[in-house]
Amino acid sequence: MKKQVRVLGIDDSPFTFQSKRALLVGVVARLPTYIEGIMRTECDVDGTDANAAIEDMVMRSRYREQLKVIMLDGVAVGGFNVVDIDHLYRTTGIPCATVTRALPNYDDIEDALRTHFKDWKVRLDIIKQHPLYKLGSARHPIYATAVGIGIDDLEIILKECTVVGALPEPLRIAHLISSAMVRGESHGRA
Amino acid sequence: MKKQVRVLGIDDSPFTFQSKRALLVGVVARLPTYIEGIMRTECDVDGTDANAAIEDMVMRSRYREQLKVIMLDGVAVGGFNVVDIDHLYRTTGIPCATVTRALPNYDDIEDALRTHFKDWKVRLDIIKQHPLYKLGSARHPIYATAVGIGIDDLEIILKECTVVGALPEPLRIAHLISSAMVRGESHGRA
Repeated sequence: MKKQVRVLGIDDSPFTFQSKRALLVGVVARLPTYIEGIMRTECDVDGTDANAAIEDMVMRSRYREQLKVIMLDGVAVGGFNVVDIDHLYRTTGIPCATVTRALPNYDDIEDALRTHFKDWKVRLDIIKQHPLYKLGSARHPIYATAVGIGIDDLEIILKECTVVGALPEPLRIAHLISSAMVRGESHGRA
Repeated sequence: MKKQVRVLGIDDSPFTFQSKRALLVGVVARLPTYIEGIMRTECDVDGTDANAAIEDMVMRSRYREQLKVIMLDGVAVGGFNVVDIDHLYRTTGIPCATVTRALPNYDDIEDALRTHFKDWKVRLDIIKQHPLYKLGSARHPIYATAVGIGIDDLEIILKECTVVGALPEPLRIAHLISSAMVRGESHGRA
């Protein structure tokens, strides 16, 4: 990896359906793990503004031109507010990836979407847009996809910024921050 | 240093005098620099509740019994909401330290306190309670004091968790988080 490579990891906060808005936290790390900057925005729980919120947060960031890849923890934030990474890549010019520790069950997701959303087909198509590749180690697998960057290059980046378990540091820290802001103290994920 | 030593760094957010409340962010790091947990609370701008807010945040934290030292960025948060580290040490049982990159000008502080606070003498006494020791390197000096832990042990801890510049990682990260939450994106300090 070149020196001074910077990546952005974004995670959403836990939310109650009363709150209607979810916090999104972005962590900029210079590889391997030096945290350089932090940013925040919000999106509607189960809304359709995730792409716009993330695009706006990234485009007004001072790190905009230095980001090698934007990593999301899964393809949806704030419930089923899905992120179209193809669109995010087009609008920001920055390669985008989703990274998740649990392989999604598309049948369950389709059931949930059909029950709650008129535009369920649009959301499902975005969620299933890209195949997930199994990366990480046998003990700590992680499922990822990317646009604008090869999956091999993504794998190198993930390996470089992962310290413990499967989750790369920018996503791990983004999760700690977003959950602490909402709950008072961060909670890990099993 | 023993392995698995954990420290808590606390910093406050920028604030406007309209907002009346300042965010306090605590970062738990396992030495040297692994971020394990994050917590938050609030205090009044220029109020007198900083000790109570920090004590409450720490005492309900799952890391409470593992913290070797609580580090504050300076002796006041949210403007002149001063932290009495002797009292904080007594109520939490955890050694406490203040760490600052700029040596405070006590005359200027006294002027500001006399102008704005009826209880200026109480606040000033807390601020001047302990002498500051110059630690860090010649290029990156840092001024610190501690209660419940020797200044030599504090110096060892600070050295271990400082990566760039003078500020130890838990305080650097706490600052990035608190400023990002209020401003949208973190800002460094000169």
